[in-house]
Parts: sequence; C-alpha cells; structure tokens
Amino acid sequence: MINVGVFGASGYTGFETIKILRQHPQVKLIFATSENSAGRNMSDIYPVAWDVPLVSSKTAPLDEVDAVFCCLPHAASMPTVRAARQSGVRVIDLSADFRLTNIATYEKWYSVPHTAPELLQEAAYGIPEINRPQIRETNLLANPGCYPTSIILALYPLLKAGLLNAQQPIIADSKSGLSGAGRKASLKTHFVEVNENLSPYNIGQKHRHIAEVSDIVNRFEGNGDNIIFSPHLVPISRGMLSTIYAGLNEDQSSPQLQTLYQEAYTGQPFMRILPDGQLATMAHTQNSNLCVISITTVTPRQLILCSSIDNLGKGAAGQAVQNFNIMFDIEETVGLI
Amino acid sequence: MINVGVFGASGYTGFETIKILRQHPQVKLIFATSENSAGRNMSDIYPVAWDVPLVSSKTAPLDEVDAVFCCLPHAASMPTVRAARQSGVRVIDLSADFRLTNIATYEKWYSVPHTAPELLQEAAYGIPEINRPQIRETNLLANPGCYPTSIILALYPLLKAGLLNAQQPIIADSKSGLSGAGRKASLKTHFVEVNENLSPYNIGQKHRHIAEVSDIVNRFEGNGDNIIFSPHLVPISRGMLSTIYAGLNEDQSSPQLQTLYQEAYTGQPFMRILPDGQLATMAHTQNSNLCVISITTVTPRQLILCSSIDNLGKGAAGQAVQNFNIMFDIEETVGLI
Amino acid sequence: MINVGVFGASGYTGFETIKILRQHPQVKLIFATSENSAGRNMSDIYPVAWDVPLVSSKTAPLDEVDAVFCCLPHAASMPTVRAARQSGVRVIDLSADFRLTNIATYEKWYSVPHTAPELLQEAAYGIPEINRPQIRETNLLANPGCYPTSIILALYPLLKAGLLNAQQPIIADSKSGLSGAGRKASLKTHFVEVNENLSPYNIGQKHRHIAEVSDIVNRFEGNGDNIIFSPHLVPISRGMLSTIYAGLNEDQSSPQLQTLYQEAYTGQPFMRILPDGQLATMAHTQNSNLCVISITTVTPRQLILCSSIDNLGKGAAGQAVQNFNIMFDIEETVGLI
Amino acid sequence: MINVGVFGASGYTGFETIKILRQHPQVKLIFATSENSAGRNMSDIYPVAWDVPLVSSKTAPLDEVDAVFCCLPHAASMPTVRAARQSGVRVIDLSADFRLTNIATYEKWYSVPHTAPELLQEAAYGIPEINRPQIRETNLLANPGCYPTSIILALYPLLKAGLLNAQQPIIADSKSGLSGAGRKASLKTHFVEVNENLSPYNIGQKHRHIAEVSDIVNRFEGNGDNIIFSPHLVPISRGMLSTIYAGLNEDQSSPQLQTLYQEAYTGQPFMRILPDGQLATMAHTQNSNLCVISITTVTPRQLILCSSIDNLGKGAAGQAVQNFNIMFDIEETVGLI
Repeated sequence: MINVGVFGASGYTGFETIKILRQHPQVKLIFATSENSAGRNMSDIYPVAWDVPLVSSKTAPLDEVDAVFCCLPHAASMPTVRAARQSGVRVIDLSADFRLTNIATYEKWYSVPHTAPELLQEAAYGIPEINRPQIRETNLLANPGCYPTSIILALYPLLKAGLLNAQQPIIADSKSGLSGAGRKASLKTHFVEVNENLSPYNIGQKHRHIAEVSDIVNRFEGNGDNIIFSPHLVPISRGMLSTIYAGLNEDQSSPQLQTLYQEAYTGQPFMRILPDGQLATMAHTQNSNLCVISITTVTPRQLILCSSIDNLGKGAAGQAVQNFNIMFDIEETVGLI
Repeated sequence: MINVGVFGASGYTGFETIKILRQHPQVKLIFATSENSAGRNMSDIYPVAWDVPLVSSKTAPLDEVDAVFCCLPHAASMPTVRAARQSGVRVIDLSADFRLTNIATYEKWYSVPHTAPELLQEAAYGIPEINRPQIRETNLLANPGCYPTSIILALYPLLKAGLLNAQQPIIADSKSGLSGAGRKASLKTHFVEVNENLSPYNIGQKHRHIAEVSDIVNRFEGNGDNIIFSPHLVPISRGMLSTIYAGLNEDQSSPQLQTLYQEAYTGQPFMRILPDGQLATMAHTQNSNLCVISITTVTPRQLILCSSIDNLGKGAAGQAVQNFNIMFDIEETVGLI
Repeated sequence: MINVGVFGASGYTGFETIKILRQHPQVKLIFATSENSAGRNMSDIYPVAWDVPLVSSKTAPLDEVDAVFCCLPHAASMPTVRAARQSGVRVIDLSADFRLTNIATYEKWYSVPHTAPELLQEAAYGIPEINRPQIRETNLLANPGCYPTSIILALYPLLKAGLLNAQQPIIADSKSGLSGAGRKASLKTHFVEVNENLSPYNIGQKHRHIAEVSDIVNRFEGNGDNIIFSPHLVPISRGMLSTIYAGLNEDQSSPQLQTLYQEAYTGQPFMRILPDGQLATMAHTQNSNLCVISITTVTPRQLILCSSIDNLGKGAAGQAVQNFNIMFDIEETVGLI
Repeated sequence: MINVGVFGASGYTGFETIKILRQHPQVKLIFATSENSAGRNMSDIYPVAWDVPLVSSKTAPLDEVDAVFCCLPHAASMPTVRAARQSGVRVIDLSADFRLTNIATYEKWYSVPHTAPELLQEAAYGIPEINRPQIRETNLLANPGCYPTSIILALYPLLKAGLLNAQQPIIADSKSGLSGAGRKASLKTHFVEVNENLSPYNIGQKHRHIAEVSDIVNRFEGNGDNIIFSPHLVPISRGMLSTIYAGLNEDQSSPQLQTLYQEAYTGQPFMRILPDGQLATMAHTQNSNLCVISITTVTPRQLILCSSIDNLGKGAAGQAVQNFNIMFDIEETVGLI
C-alpha cells in the first residue's frame, strides 16, 4: 500500500482525485486538506454518501505519506510542493506551477514570481503517452492542463512525424464544461448566466494554456508561436472537446492518417482513435480517463482533429492518478477503469 | 406618459422589470439604480444589445417620477419606499416588506424589525385577479412573492367557494427555476452544483413565503395554519410549477370544478384553466405574465392542482407591471403581451 | 465465474446493466441481444470506447449461461423469461411482468394478458433491504420499478413499525430524469420539448407503478388504496427524487424517527439516512446504487420523506446486479462500488 | 392590414413565425397549415395559452392572402411556392429551395431535382443588411439558412472591403442549439443523447449550408471554395454562435476593423458590433432578431469573429418577418422589437 495525501481537497479537482483514490486498491489515503473547510467532512461540502475528514494543511502529516497530490491553485502550490519535496515525498502537482520549463514564460503568463525555481529541474511534465520514461523517474510530476492535454494528444502523431505545416496557424477551437472553471462562486459560474448560453473567452493568444501547448510543439521542432487557441464555456458540468484545424506540409490520405495515429498510440490504454467517418463527442469520454480522437481530412493538406477528454478525468485527476501509477510502478489502469 | 424609476435594477427582477418597461408605450424610464454598478450601463452587466445607465439611488430624482418599482431585497426596501412615499411617488414594491399585514409575523419570518409600520396601512397586496379594486386605489402596492402567487391563484376559487377541507393539510410541492434564487454568486447557484440536480430546501413549514399564503387563506376563513409548502430547485433558468394536493369538504366532479375555475377567472386576461386531461407544465407560461392551472380529481374529495407561472413574469416583474397598469388606469395587458 | 446474458441490451437499462457487468470480477458476459441492432456493436449505437457485439435473441445461447438479465419492455419479457427458465437459467427480469402478484391487477394496469402465469409462483419481488431471503432462493427475480423503489424504501421503516395513519393519503410527489422514459425517440423526449421544462404526467392514481407500491403497502397491512403518486419529468438525464408526505398514527419526534430509520437499515450497504436538517437531493445518488433518505417532521404526526435514487442505478440496473449478487452468493456490493 | 398564410406551421420555424405574426400590428393571419395536425389547434401540439387552427395545405385559401411564409422542408417547398406564385401571392420561403442560384449546385447538395427552375429567376436571397433593394422588389424571397446568416454577416464588411486573404481558408467553427435540428423525433434529438454532450457533425466541407456561404463569397469576388465549416450541436434549445478565423491580405488594427464594421452596419437596426475587448455570446441574441458580432485581432493579418444570432430569430423566422416588412414597405422593425 502507498500512503497518500491530497492538498486542496475541496475543489472539483481535489474532490475528483479523492473519489478515484478511494477506489484505488493500492492506495491508503492519509489526509485531505482544505483551509476553508478544515474540521469538517467531505459529506458536509459535497452531496456524497461516504466521508473523508478535512484538515488544515498545517496539520497534514507529511512524514506519514509516500506521495501527495497537490490540487491547489497556481502560486499557492509552490510552497506546499517545496515542503513536500523537502520531506522526501513524491509530488503530483495539478497546478500550473511546474509545467513550464522557462521561468520567464511562467512569470509572464501567471503574473507572479516563481518562488521555487530550484524544483523546476526535477519536474517532469506528465502526459504518459508522450513521455512515460521521465514520468517513471520523477519525484515532481507536473500534471498538464486540461486544454493542453486535449490539444497535445491530438497533435502529437503529426509532431512526431514532422507533418505539420509550420507556415500555417494551428487553430484549436475548444469547448469546456463548467467544472473546469473551478468551484469558486462567481457571476461567471452562476447557473442562470451559464445555462442556455455559450461563451468564448480569452480567445486568440490570450489564455495561459497556450504556453503549455507551445512548449510541447517547440520540443518537436514545430512552430510553437503559431497556435491560435479559442476556449468556449458550454452549459455542461464536465467534458471537453477541442476542434483543431491543422495544415500539413505534405499530402496525406485518410487511411494514412488513421495508420499514423493508430501506430502512435498502440498499446496506450486510454487512447482511442475513431474509425474514419465517426466524430469524437464529449460523451465519448465523460467520467473516464480516456482521450478519444477523430480525424477528418478536408483536403490532403488540411485536416480537422476532434479531441475529447473529460476535463476532470484525463484533463486533471484521472491523468494525475495515471501518472502516480507510473511513478509507483503500479499497472497504469489501476483505479481508472 | 408616466415617468417611472426602478430601484435595484441590476438583479434579475429589476432587469426583467426594465425589459418590460422599455417596451411599454406609456412609460418613460427616468432612472434605474444599482449601488454596485452605479456609473455603468446595463449592457456592461448583462449581455444585452440595448442600454440603460445605472445610477446610485442617492442621485435618483424622485421628484421627476410618478411611480417607482422597488426591486430591492427585503429590509433594504423599507427606507427607499418611505422616501418615495414622502415625495408623493406611488410605489410598486417587489420585496416582502409590505406583503404581510401583521408586523409580528413579518419580524418573525424575516428576522429584522419593521421600520416603516406606518406605511403598512396604505399597502395593498396585489394579485389583480383577487383584489383589483384595492390595487386601483393604493399608493403602495406590495407585489406578491412568486411561490405565493402560484399557490394562491390555484386555491382562490376553492377558497371563495368555501370548499377546502380545513381538517386536511394543503400540500404545495413547488418547483422553481434558479433565477428565483437571485443573481448573487454563491455555491448554491454555481452551475455545476445545480445542473443535473434537483434539491428540496426549507420544506414543511420553514420557507418565508408560507406566511403570505396563510394570510390569504385566513382572509377567506380557511385554515391558514394548515399549509405544508415544499420548494425544490430545478436546473432551469426561469419557470415555476406548484403541484398542490387539496382535500374538499364536499364531493365535486371534474366538470363542476372546471366550471368553478372558469367562472372564477372569467375575463382575467392572464389566467388559463386547462381542459380536463391536460396538465400544466412550466413551458405553458415561460417568458409571459400568464398563470396556467390544471385540475385533476383523484377522488371527489381529493384533487391535485398544477399551477404554472414564470417566476420572473407573473411571479415578479410581470405582475408588478400588471399592478402598475391598474394603478395608473392603463389597460391591464399593455406591455405584457 | 458466472456466465451471463443480457436481453434487450440497446436500451438505457440494458446498456447500464452491461456497463456494470463489464466491471464485475465474477461475471463473464456471454451474449447481449438487440433485435434492432443485431450484427452491430455497442460502440455503433453508443459513444463508448469499449465494445460488445449485439446479437439477435434468436441466436442467444441460453445453454451457455447461468443467468440472464432481461431488459425488455413489459409483455415482451414474458416469452423470453419462460424460455430461459425452461433452459434452467436463473432470471433477473427488469420488466414489470413478474412484479405484481395478482394477474388481474397486472392485466388491468398493463392492458395485455399475462401469458406466463405459472411463473408468477416462483417470482420474487426484489428489494434486498426488505426481502433478501426470498431473493437468495428465487430463480426468477422481478426487479422493481424505479419509482416504487424510491417510495417503498422511504416508507418501509414506517410500514414495519405500523406507524402510518391509514386514514390519510400517502402522497408521493416524484421527479425523474429522462432516461427513465427510455431511449425510443418521441416528441416527449425531444430535447427542445424537455429542456427548460418540467412536466407532470399521469398524476393522482394513473401511473402503473402505483400498483407495485400498493402491493407492498398491503403486505404490511397498510392501506394500499390510499396512495397518491404524481410523477414529473425534469430536464436531467438520470436521477430520481420522491418527496413523500405521510401522516402518522402516533406522535414521533425527529430523534425517534432517525433511530427508527437507522435501525431499519443497519448494515445495508446501499442505504444512507441523512442526519436531521439535511435534505436528500438527486446528486446524492447519481451514478451509484445508493438510496439516500431524509426525514423532515412538520408536526409530530406529519412528516416529509425525501428519497433519492439513480433511476438507472438502484432504480434499475444497479439493483438488478445487487439482486444477482445475492442470488449467486456473491458479496452484495461487488461491481457496484 | 396584410393578409398572410403560413405553410408548415407545426415545426419550430413555422411556430416561431406564427408567434411573431400574432403580435404584428399590420398582419392578419388567414391560415396556418400542418398535414400531420390538420383539424387540431396550435395549443394541442404546443404548450401555449393562445390558439390558431391548423388546416391541411389542400384547403388553404391562397386567394385570400397577400403573402405566404413557406416553412416546409426543402423539396417539399417547391410545389407549394409555385402554387402560391401562380395565384399571384408573394412568397417568403424559409426552405433551401430557392437560395442557390445554380441548379446543379442545388441538386448536388440536396440530392433532389429542382422542379421549379423557372422561379429561380425571380428569387432574391434575403439578408437585408446586404441586399435590401432586391428584397424590396422580389415576389419570391429565399430566406437564408441560420448558419450562413451568422457567417455571412460576420464576413460581409471584409468582403465588401476586399480584405480577405484568398489564399487562406476561412474557418467557421459554429455551435447551434437543438431547435435548429427540427422537431422531428429522432435519437439525435433525444434529450438523454444531447444533454451534457457536445457533438460535431458534417464538419469540413460536408454541410449543405456551405454552398450558401460560397455563393455570397463568390459574389464579392472572394474565394468561395476556401471555406471550412464545422457545425456542432450544443445542449441549448435556441441560439447560434459562429467563431470564424479569417486571414487578411493587408494589416489592420483593431480600431480600423471596429470602424470598418461600424460603418458597414450603420443604421441597421438588428446589427450590433461589440466594442473591442467584449466577445459575442449566445445570450446576446436569444429570443431576438439581432446579430451581434465581436472582432478579435490575433495579429494584424489574422482575426477571429464571433457572430451570435438566435437560430429561430435572425436565423429563420425573425429574418423572414424582417424581409416581409421590407417587401411590404412596413417599417423594418415592426413585430420584431
């Protein structure tokens, strides 16, 4: 059994992490923290019929755990991660604090100083389908953002094959359920404002997640400056679909692309490439750790990828547990299917 | 033209009132107040393609208006209403502050002292289908609550005919859309908490609106203590349906009850009694000032009334304008159909 | 391993049954039938990333299975159940065909002749919390309806204790998600007709499920004729809440009722009685096999029970697998938590 | 008063047309047809508290009307339109039958022969903001499709100014509410399939509406072959948002584009260009005849247009009445605000 703690258990991501860990046969949950709800139980703040006590992070026994999931907001995560690492605890951090390799980029997008630059060295950005070896070795796993996961998994086979036309923008028109906006009450998440509405926000090159996507595209010698990313909120609790428009630098037929994608993801338990003619929808992945991708060729040089994940599953808590399993040499699907 | 001001224009009720008044051919909107958004425009706080400037109530020119709609929360309404009345302005108050005739009852349910008891004398509770003459004469119209409107209009023909069995509880199981909970951001109105959920709250005899219903039932010599009222929130923006279980003190057939209801509401432009076999749904009244009622006889002594209103229409702003029209001798349906 | 078949796999209930059985460590799924989709796969008709081939019931190998789940519509179920029983296969039937003990009652409510009366003898109505011993022994399990499950579980402690006032109607105002209406396309299930609407249907004493509730109430010497049941459709995919108004024949305090309910359900893994002051909502049970009940005392003789289940979980497929576990001496919660 | 008939009154478009016409002070509704519901009333098939009798189109008195709105499906529209024109009645046709100028294009996309080619000559495609003069003169108004309206109104100022880069695809990622899919019951419109889901369909260059957009782009000497159009269904009853990615052939600043759009739509009562920094959402136009557009510059050569309409308003019935008003020399906004 692996002893585990969860920081930031009261938000949607923390709650989802705990829901998964409760069912995980090789995990013992030692603590779950919430500053606002310390002293209360999970069933006091969520309509659930099971329970987990919530404690202040100040009283969380770091010396009793092998790993922690850090589900705190960006910036708040850094000191907690440092404390855990100093106690020799392995960390899966779901915030943005250790995702970007370049400190200046982080500080530009998140408008706060990076207070734990020494830890960036050991951090591994964790999309198992792309960099499982680094994940296995790391003590500090930077769990990707939801939008970047959906976009990068769709682009990865093209990036690896060097097929993207660097002269053309990659356009990701993404749609997200509301749990992605967090549990904090605000007018933007008020039912009446959201229901029967669909709203774009931070479109173009303004959303922070664009930096994560650029980073990965650049690693594959793609043109990371060339991404246009337009998120939209839809009146759905959980789910994410990115419709991605990409140009190719050489002609590709539908069967060729099918083969390319099938091969890129052979043996990956959470990836599904839909057969030609089917399109990925949010329903394909809801309440799962799956990523489902469809490929539509408009012309031999122009394609549309639809990439579906659950923003709380493969987009957050699910992928975090998948990374945890890899880090602790547990079969990758345990607790997730 | 009648010059009108609206206090509390930024909430859902105030916004809906202004939407109706903008289309009203005999109204000139002089001011709309919002303390939080003073200096901004309506299009800054709502996604609308028209505009109205918002001012602080301190600068609202009471001397330029004939009437004000007061869409403030309870307790906040009293001083504003007093100021308006002292300026000789007729008031349509949408809060609860002047609905209850008994001060002790008000103070018990609302947990604040009533600071304008002298005005209660001139206040008229305004459901036009029941007491149009008092509405016509009053200078201070207490606009009813949404739940009470749906329940009282369903019971009124039985109350008038003395048919309710006073020994049996009247059970109102009510379902409301979320705009009834106001526009203030809170976890209770967060999309993810509300969506795909249905929640009872304050059921039994705990919701403030029970006092309004009791008041009216008592006026008709019914047993006002005998009401059980169970509100439920449903994942819908606007709409209200009360399913009411009532016992009779003498046998009544379906045709007799149809006649009773049709006659009680003859000539009322916003009332519809559905023919036997049809049931009222929320869709019957959404975006209107209608109240639609269906009558189902379980036994000759036991019936089920389904009463549908739009909580922002007949349950708030619509009825307020209907009352305003009566007060100012305008045809009752102007601006409302 | 127990070999299992599913008849009627393409509807929501059949699909949900298969989803649960796929995860069940002691079940091997031998066949799944669908007349309309025979020859296709589950992923052709649902957006799922796993697969099960669908066959015609004519080719279903009854001789290879130990048990079948029959998820067919009422009337269609009878011949299939008979064939299975003649092959010596144990049956969990999710239709209404074997729920009612009295043939005349069945034929009155379902308007078809009962063509397998000889099987009624061996059928057991299966709510484990009430009659686990009969379930263990039976070869033909009649899985209860969703509404009856929510209502009976709420009333059972009162029935057992003889506390219900037989002179007063038991009023169940129930709200159901749309999956309860089945997957057949119709105007009643069209998104635009359902969305932003709430509709009562078959209210009073007109819905078929009232017969099941009466049956159980009568078994406990309650007044089974005294039930008023009003179902409502709400714009939610899955979930059910019954708000039940019941009169008592002697005074009971809230703590007494808490004790009564806690004791009645001690050791039942899928039952939760909420502490005084909390109210059951649909979210308490969604995507689970739980039944969550809250108790509200209006007066010492009048109470309101809120009973929440997932209509596809404890209201159909979940309870079916729970019954299956009991029949095959498997721990009751396997596959369900 | 202008005497008007409506063919195909029972679908969402026909119903919406009648709702608008009922409030139109210069219209007398002479007949409304429905083959499936002939002999019934509107309140039998919709939950409305007003009524209109429905008759078979065979008995519709063409000689009593000045104009008809034809809300029939494509192909079914042609014979009805011909009959109306032969009676000298002016026609507003909401189907696709007279929208495309080229018969071969029509027959390719709609897979039926065009049986009324002689009428194409007199047909005018009706987007008032673009070609009001032709609308005024025509006797056969081809009312545009919903998606094309949202896209063309967004592109028009760029087309007129010759600013679109013809070498780059115009990508329209569109999101539509479900009423756009019609009222016919089908699995695709079943509540449970649609709710909490978002589905792309016919993406790339497969949706029929692409032909309408191409036609207009070509008229302005743009590259009509260069359009990529990806519609998505969202769980919303009515509303449409097109997010459009367009490249320019010369640098443009945000203020320049604001000016361009403001000037292109000066004096158009149903057009709103949002100020820089605001984004169009579905809520901006719901239940109205408005089109609201926002402009976001990603680079001086790359922009994102968000174009919001109500698919039943400016996307169908609203625009049809606007066109009718122009044809009959009525002020354009009558009945629509």
